[in-house]
Amino acid sequence: MQYPNSISKLIESFSKLPGIGPKTAERLSFYVANKMNEDDVLGFAKGLVNVKRELTTCPVCGHITDQTPCYICTDGGRDRSILTVVEDAKDVIALEKMKEYKGLYHVLNGVISPINGIGPNDINIKALIERLKDEEIKEVIIATNPTVEGESTSMYIAKLLKDTDIKMSRIARGLPVGAGLEYADEVTLLKALEGRSEIK
Amino acid sequence: MQYPNSISKLIESFSKLPGIGPKTAERLSFYVANKMNEDDVLGFAKGLVNVKRELTTCPVCGHITDQTPCYICTDGGRDRSILTVVEDAKDVIALEKMKEYKGLYHVLNGVISPINGIGPNDINIKALIERLKDEEIKEVIIATNPTVEGESTSMYIAKLLKDTDIKMSRIARGLPVGAGLEYADEVTLLKALEGRSEIK
Repeated sequence: MQYPNSISKLIESFSKLPGIGPKTAERLSFYVANKMNEDDVLGFAKGLVNVKRELTTCPVCGHITDQTPCYICTDGGRDRSILTVVEDAKDVIALEKMKEYKGLYHVLNGVISPINGIGPNDINIKALIERLKDEEIKEVIIATNPTVEGESTSMYIAKLLKDTDIKMSRIARGLPVGAGLEYADEVTLLKALEGRSEIK
Repeated sequence: MQYPNSISKLIESFSKLPGIGPKTAERLSFYVANKMNEDDVLGFAKGLVNVKRELTTCPVCGHITDQTPCYICTDGGRDRSILTVVEDAKDVIALEKMKEYKGLYHVLNGVISPINGIGPNDINIKALIERLKDEEIKEVIIATNPTVEGESTSMYIAKLLKDTDIKMSRIARGLPVGAGLEYADEVTLLKALEGRSEIK
C-alpha cells in the first residue's frame, strides 16, 4: 500500500488521538486533504500549536489555563470557602457547564492507581494539602470519578484531612437522571440505595 | 462557559471534521492540550499544512497525489487495458489494499445526485470519456458504491459508453463475506440471488 507520504504522516498523527483508530484516521486525513478548505486547515494547524504553546497548568488549582492564576482562581465572585477536587481539567469544564457551583476547584491531574504505577506523589495532592493550610477553605467536595481509582483517591485524601476541621463530602453515586432501574448495574443500585434521601 | 480561548478555537476546528461532535472535539482538544507531547502536536500541525499544500488531484485519473501524474498512473507495471471507476480517492486506497487489482483507476470525486444539485458535469466524467477515447482501455469496471446515487452514476456512464466496443462491468452486489443471511436486507439478498454464479 502506497499513500502519498504527507497523507501517511497525517494518518499517523490522527491515530495518536484517543478513540481514533486507523480507519477513522484515514477517513479524517482524506477529508482534510480533499474536502476541507485551506483556511480551515491552516486554522486547525494553528489551533494545535497555540493550544500547546499558550496553555499551561494553573499553579494554584492545576486547571488548564492561558493566564496564571487561572480565570477561576482569579474570579472575585466565587465562594472561596468551598473547594471541589476533580481528576481532570475536563471535569472542571463539566461542572462549570452546570452553572450552579460557585466555589473553587483543585485538579489532581490523575488518580492514584498502583496498577499503573501512579502513587499519591505523582498527582497534584501535595499542592492541595498546602492550599487547605493556607486558604480559608471550610468544605472540600471530592468529585473524583466513581471508579475504583477515583474512590481510593477520595479515601486517601479523606484520610489525610482526618484531623483537620474541614468539612468533607463525596459527590453522590446513584442512578443518572432519566435512566431506568432495570438497566443499572448492582453496584450503582447499591450506591443509590445507600445514598437515599428522606422525602417525608 | 469559559474555556481558554485557544481551546475553544481547537474545539471548533475538530468539530469541522466529519463524525466528530462537540463532545469528542472537546475530549480531543483537551487531550492535545494536556496529554500529547509537543513534538507530536507540532508534527500533527505540520502534517495538516503539508497535506493541504503538497497534495493535488492527479490530472489524469483524479486520484489524490503528491506528484503529477500520480503514482498509479505512472506505474509501468500496471495493466493499462483495464480501468476501474470509483467515487472517491479513499476507494482507490481500499481497492489497492486488496493487492490483487493491477489496472488503472478513474476517480469521479463524487456521484450524480440531483437531490444535492450534483449533475454529470459537476463530477469527473468528462475526463473519463476523454481517457477512453485516447487510451487503449478494453474494460471499464464501474465500482461506485451500491447506493442509489452510485447505481445511477453507473447507469449514466454505461449509457455514455453504449456505442463503444469497450467492455463494461459493475462490481458484484451481494452478501459480505462472513455475514449471515438472516441479517441481510431484502435488496442485498435480491442482488445476491441475481448475481449468483454457477458452481456445477
